[in-house]
Amino acid sequence: MASKASNPRGTRDLLPEVMVQREYILEILKTTFRKYGFLPIETPALEKLETLTGKYGEEGDRLIFKVLPRGDKFEKAFREGDAQEAREKLNHNLEEALRYDLTVPFARFVVQNHNALHFPFKRYQIQPVWRADRPSKGRYREFYQCDADVVGSSSLWQEVDFIGIYKQVFSDLGLPIRVKMNHRKVLQGLTEKFGVENDFQAFTVALDKLDKVGLAGVQKEMSERGLAQGALDALAFVAGLSGSNTEVLSQLEAEISETTSGKAGLEEIRFVIDACSELGQEDVLDLDFTLARGLDYYTGAIFEVKAVDLELGSIGGGGRYDDLTGIFGLKDLPGIGISFGLDRIQLALEEKGLFPAMTHSGTDMLMVNFGDKEALFANKLAAQLRELGLKTELYPDAVKMKKQLDYANKKGIRYVLLIGSQEMEEGLFTLKDMQEGSQRKLGAIELLEAFNTSQNNKHAKH
Amino acid sequence: MASKASNPRGTRDLLPEVMVQREYILEILKTTFRKYGFLPIETPALEKLETLTGKYGEEGDRLIFKVLPRGDKFEKAFREGDAQEAREKLNHNLEEALRYDLTVPFARFVVQNHNALHFPFKRYQIQPVWRADRPSKGRYREFYQCDADVVGSSSLWQEVDFIGIYKQVFSDLGLPIRVKMNHRKVLQGLTEKFGVENDFQAFTVALDKLDKVGLAGVQKEMSERGLAQGALDALAFVAGLSGSNTEVLSQLEAEISETTSGKAGLEEIRFVIDACSELGQEDVLDLDFTLARGLDYYTGAIFEVKAVDLELGSIGGGGRYDDLTGIFGLKDLPGIGISFGLDRIQLALEEKGLFPAMTHSGTDMLMVNFGDKEALFANKLAAQLRELGLKTELYPDAVKMKKQLDYANKKGIRYVLLIGSQEMEEGLFTLKDMQEGSQRKLGAIELLEAFNTSQNNKHAKH
Repeated sequence: MASKASNPRGTRDLLPEVMVQREYILEILKTTFRKYGFLPIETPALEKLETLTGKYGEEGDRLIFKVLPRGDKFEKAFREGDAQEAREKLNHNLEEALRYDLTVPFARFVVQNHNALHFPFKRYQIQPVWRADRPSKGRYREFYQCDADVVGSSSLWQEVDFIGIYKQVFSDLGLPIRVKMNHRKVLQGLTEKFGVENDFQAFTVALDKLDKVGLAGVQKEMSERGLAQGALDALAFVAGLSGSNTEVLSQLEAEISETTSGKAGLEEIRFVIDACSELGQEDVLDLDFTLARGLDYYTGAIFEVKAVDLELGSIGGGGRYDDLTGIFGLKDLPGIGISFGLDRIQLALEEKGLFPAMTHSGTDMLMVNFGDKEALFANKLAAQLRELGLKTELYPDAVKMKKQLDYANKKGIRYVLLIGSQEMEEGLFTLKDMQEGSQRKLGAIELLEAFNTSQNNKHAKH
Repeated sequence: MASKASNPRGTRDLLPEVMVQREYILEILKTTFRKYGFLPIETPALEKLETLTGKYGEEGDRLIFKVLPRGDKFEKAFREGDAQEAREKLNHNLEEALRYDLTVPFARFVVQNHNALHFPFKRYQIQPVWRADRPSKGRYREFYQCDADVVGSSSLWQEVDFIGIYKQVFSDLGLPIRVKMNHRKVLQGLTEKFGVENDFQAFTVALDKLDKVGLAGVQKEMSERGLAQGALDALAFVAGLSGSNTEVLSQLEAEISETTSGKAGLEEIRFVIDACSELGQEDVLDLDFTLARGLDYYTGAIFEVKAVDLELGSIGGGGRYDDLTGIFGLKDLPGIGISFGLDRIQLALEEKGLFPAMTHSGTDMLMVNFGDKEALFANKLAAQLRELGLKTELYPDAVKMKKQLDYANKKGIRYVLLIGSQEMEEGLFTLKDMQEGSQRKLGAIELLEAFNTSQNNKHAKH
């Protein structure tokens, strides 16, 4: 009996049109990472459950997809064995799970492969992750993360590099962005100054929701969580800052530079801002002292990227951490990382019509099939066109021309070449330009020359 | 407490050196697929269990990784609830699993997205699959498959295209190969001729093991399975064939062309061979009538690819099928597909030393860090070199030069640029070529020109 064809809830199929767009984005990401000295790694989708458990908070733990122990031993116990025994078997053998993000597996990777890596180690990683979340519009149970990290150095030049990478990638994509920056030590200094340093974590968790619930919402949450009045004052202070990067920095310096953390954080920020300004990349950067980033492991600069004029949420983010690998027993390995939100970047480019024409089509030329003899002839020519880099296909069956032209139209193939028996005899073929709606007759050499030139022009443009 | 850093048995981390090699191979695969009009798709790692069950035989079913139902409801039932109830809950809710191959998900994809696709639909797909197999050397529980398929046409030009793709890919990789071809209908004709047509399936399953267990092994298995003497005679006949493609084809024609299946299969083979010969791609092709391919769904031409002079097993394979989507309710959609074995191709290139030098290194140039002022200066130059396409990084910390040069050596970085305070004043920098062990002094413009030229040369070579 036939099974119904459907994919699990919260997952999706990626069709060619979407894939070609994603590959366009990923190509720019990878090229930029490489230009800054990053190299790719991959980790397995399956991790030991103990590697993941306890790293994402209680809520996160619940969303980890666990994999049933191997083989039929367990299935048998469940179907036929003693129920109590089956339960115990499962509980004791539930050992593997699907990765929940790329950060914890990367930390595990660094510790495990420590001796094979050269530090400072710069890697990028582009792989799917899984979360047993309630699926909703735009929220999937399986989605890609694109991360770049450096571990093994606390140099602030890396903050500068990552801002440069953000600027380069989105400039190549043609998407105007703002990179928001803050510093966890500045936030710490702030809570010290306002006398709520003991509530630092609760303060940042509430502050992190500013985008979603607004100022009043954060105030309400802080009150409900029983935070002291100082927290509300600190919130009012940072939310009230405005002006250029230098201006808000000065206002903050006046307020918190006598606190140890505040001073240290502000110095680092000033270094990064000055370097960015010298390197001509400050134009994408906004100091935003309300930025919190919910994750506990950040200890230094934190970033968040938004597309200008789009209601999309963040399309990237990251920050510096002191001790990500400590959980796996390797202490004092500082690092910094950023990520890109592939799905949202795709949405943003789509919405702004920023995908170049090349991403809409695959094949450059379709050879019409008039029968075996003609098809063989066409195939010989196709081989030569492919040598020139032209994506060329023969329609597989000698069906009505209308059907073949339909196929070209639907697939967005620009050129169609007609080689019938008469054309073969004459040595002159009809080339249709489906985009311009024109056609002309030309010989094999002329054809090859025409596309050799157009390929060279294409390369010259890049 | 620190967790131990280790990955699950049968999985692996891919380090940069390995990843760069894999990307080199995948780039050639993708470029070739694209040149023949194929476009990428992806399907989710998670499929409904019912989509996968019953498609891979009993043995296959046992190797499917099942995923525990979502959320803590089940975990709670297992830890705290009634054991019997917990067991039933699991049995009734075990609904999702990790994909076992790319073929069944592709069939599901085609049926589900039928209305959005243009037929004949040509796709390639490069994604990991999971099998709960016993791990051993070179056999992993998580590994990549690279497939290309066309569905919606039974034109033999596609057999010709796929042989062309195999030839092109391995010629670009520099790896000599043989593509073995047979045809399921020829095998059918053979069993008819030898009077064992009712044991066709058992015959092909046994024949499929020829590579592993040898002729005597297959004979033994056929006897043990109770196959009639005809099966042994058929085996002896095909194993005894030798000579050029045309010669073995003629010998077989003489023997089985009066059977309906045999005749049909031989005609198709002849068409493919003739076309390949006309297109200059017969040189990689070997007719091998002992080739069986274990999978039941093949109905026409079948292929297997081996690297010449390497004991590796097959590095690719595939074949034509009539009705892959029938299991999901869409009848009469013929297709053909091939796959590439990424891991084995990588092993083969490694063993023969065929990876080009560019795959061993990431960064082209390291800027030595002498302190913040010098680093800023270096970073400005780095930005310009990146504009030229040069992969350039600044060593993040101003540590001893030896340590920085060590890093360059270990990462295989060819050029190192020294910009100290004196060099900044003079406007003349020291460029070390770590490969040639030489160094020279040059100014910024001279440097940019030198690498602009060398980048252009690099492109010109491709």
